[in-house]
Amino acid sequence: MRTTVGIVGGGPAGLLLARLLHRAGVDCVVLESRDHGYVEARQRAGILEQGTVDALRACGAGARMDREGLLHHGIELRFEGRAHRVDFPALTGGRSVMVYAQTEVVKDLIALQLTDGPPLLFGAEVLAIEGPDSAAPAIRFRHEGREQTLHCDFVAGCDGFHGVARRAVPARLTTVYERVYPYSWLGVLADVAPSCEELIYARHRRGFALHSMRSPLVSRLYLQVAADTDPAGWSDERIWDELSARFAVDGDWALERGPITAKSVTPMRSFVQEPMRHGRLFLAGDAAHIVPPTGAKGLNLAVTDVITLARALALHHETGSTELLDGYSETCLRRVWQAERFSYFMTDTLHPHPDRSPFEERLRLAQLERIADSPTASAELAENYVGLPLI
Amino acid sequence: MRTTVGIVGGGPAGLLLARLLHRAGVDCVVLESRDHGYVEARQRAGILEQGTVDALRACGAGARMDREGLLHHGIELRFEGRAHRVDFPALTGGRSVMVYAQTEVVKDLIALQLTDGPPLLFGAEVLAIEGPDSAAPAIRFRHEGREQTLHCDFVAGCDGFHGVARRAVPARLTTVYERVYPYSWLGVLADVAPSCEELIYARHRRGFALHSMRSPLVSRLYLQVAADTDPAGWSDERIWDELSARFAVDGDWALERGPITAKSVTPMRSFVQEPMRHGRLFLAGDAAHIVPPTGAKGLNLAVTDVITLARALALHHETGSTELLDGYSETCLRRVWQAERFSYFMTDTLHPHPDRSPFEERLRLAQLERIADSPTASAELAENYVGLPLI
Repeated sequence: MRTTVGIVGGGPAGLLLARLLHRAGVDCVVLESRDHGYVEARQRAGILEQGTVDALRACGAGARMDREGLLHHGIELRFEGRAHRVDFPALTGGRSVMVYAQTEVVKDLIALQLTDGPPLLFGAEVLAIEGPDSAAPAIRFRHEGREQTLHCDFVAGCDGFHGVARRAVPARLTTVYERVYPYSWLGVLADVAPSCEELIYARHRRGFALHSMRSPLVSRLYLQVAADTDPAGWSDERIWDELSARFAVDGDWALERGPITAKSVTPMRSFVQEPMRHGRLFLAGDAAHIVPPTGAKGLNLAVTDVITLARALALHHETGSTELLDGYSETCLRRVWQAERFSYFMTDTLHPHPDRSPFEERLRLAQLERIADSPTASAELAENYVGLPLI
Repeated sequence: MRTTVGIVGGGPAGLLLARLLHRAGVDCVVLESRDHGYVEARQRAGILEQGTVDALRACGAGARMDREGLLHHGIELRFEGRAHRVDFPALTGGRSVMVYAQTEVVKDLIALQLTDGPPLLFGAEVLAIEGPDSAAPAIRFRHEGREQTLHCDFVAGCDGFHGVARRAVPARLTTVYERVYPYSWLGVLADVAPSCEELIYARHRRGFALHSMRSPLVSRLYLQVAADTDPAGWSDERIWDELSARFAVDGDWALERGPITAKSVTPMRSFVQEPMRHGRLFLAGDAAHIVPPTGAKGLNLAVTDVITLARALALHHETGSTELLDGYSETCLRRVWQAERFSYFMTDTLHPHPDRSPFEERLRLAQLERIADSPTASAELAENYVGLPLI
């Protein structure tokens, strides 16, 4: 079996890359270790930057997103009983974000791929990426009980933090940057209309809380909890009480409660593996970098990685030039580090923690006060939130 | 001996307060523990915000500053061989800062005070502030070998971090926030024309460095050093070599060397004592808060404290209203915490330190890259540097 670009991983990064390459006339094959049902059920982020929305539309995957997605023109910050709205269009020259769950993006991309796209193999477990720095790399994988080899000109590692792609780069050639946070998020899905029209990021002495939404009838809520928390220890009532306490604000506002349909605990990690290229292997998305979810950057970074990679592969396909491929890692990392910085900033500013001194905690409040009082500081948050330019 | 306002401390805060009160027709007496010569020789900061410049002019202490001070319209940031100028007027609607040493401000204020001002006693060592929360506070002090008491309606504690004023507030009524940094600044004065027209803040792997100036013929330079550094261990040659290495930038630039006339090591501390009022005792400047010098905020904060206090005392003098006095602590602290935040930000972003992980160090570089690439992030730095509004 052979193709031009072997794509390891059928999450949003791998699927969008396949779509972009297909439209550029570059052959590819997507290998996804999980089955179709599992991939479409994975719950992940749901905030799409304008650039991500544009990319999905441009490759024909925007129709349902445009019908069902919720355009958001701001977020609310809450702290010390205050509420402050950050108005995205006013602060960024008209830009906004779209609330549309990653799992829906994946469904849309899979539907396109299966109708009109390059091969997508579910249940294809990649065993090894061979010769990534040779002229003829190959992907060894097991599919339907049989070991096979996909020969290709290039390999795109889109298989996430736990995948095989990033481990195919020799450790001596990589630099790893990492931070594991001493807290996690307890996330719940609830069958209740959101109590707000836009996301609320709350910093409370009791901990951080986030009010998000999946649809006009389904709320998505998060609570900062200790890193080793078992969700079983959190009854529905305890969750609602805690959420109500953390979102409390001076004036009239109440959190609507409803049946909780899912609970899970997400660890918080920052991670970057440099460079994002090794020979003919290119890492994209979570395979190269992880951000904590507070800045809503994970999916969007994966999208800009694969846009950059697709352009580079298309240029090579058309002209033989390796110029963009050679610049891939550096181009992506510039933007990656800005997203890492912003995600750390949001996480660090909004999560109180007993490891920090009262001085350091008080500075975080001063930062929120500054954002609330200053159009410039507000604009700095807004520009980063709606997404920095692709370069 | 009695007066309306007893001022403990004859540094810039106490002297400017005396001047402002004098012009408002409020009696006061300044007690300074050191002698005249010592006070005028103390080397401190030298960056005056627009608001500080305006206040000095308004009280008649601006003539020499306007002749000899250097108006600065920006600073330069250096990191990883890059140089980026932050243009203050362009980013802040026309605001700038004045480079004029604190020691010169003090000389100008003393000259005014001795010619045409309320009593200023040098060598007056304050022993105790008695009954600060009573209706009739008193300051017990020793002057010319004799113990005396100054009875007053109000006491202004302007005697710095090591003074007696802040200790006159019972510990059970105060909250202290503090951070001591694991590094210090080795500062030198050199008889050489500055190698730059504006201040240079450099972040280098070897440590932070700052190029400032006292006059067109005298340079003021600083190096980040370990907290327990003995300046004797730093020969002139070692200092120049280290400065040259840390200021190095791609392209043509060289640091001019000259005779070093003074060397000293300054520890770096953040400190806030809340509230800034106890009964009829009001703390101002370093008596209530310390910032590391990286943000150039210490003197400027002291000035806004005493402007706020003078207004409050003048209102009380004219109308008997305690409204502004009652709001003094809260009003000052809002601005203090913004200056604490900014000073911490500048210090933390510009000083590398082995206690931090490579991830955290890389984020600081990303922050500088963001400032260099984004007018919004640059404006946020500039607005804070030239000084936030008085409220």
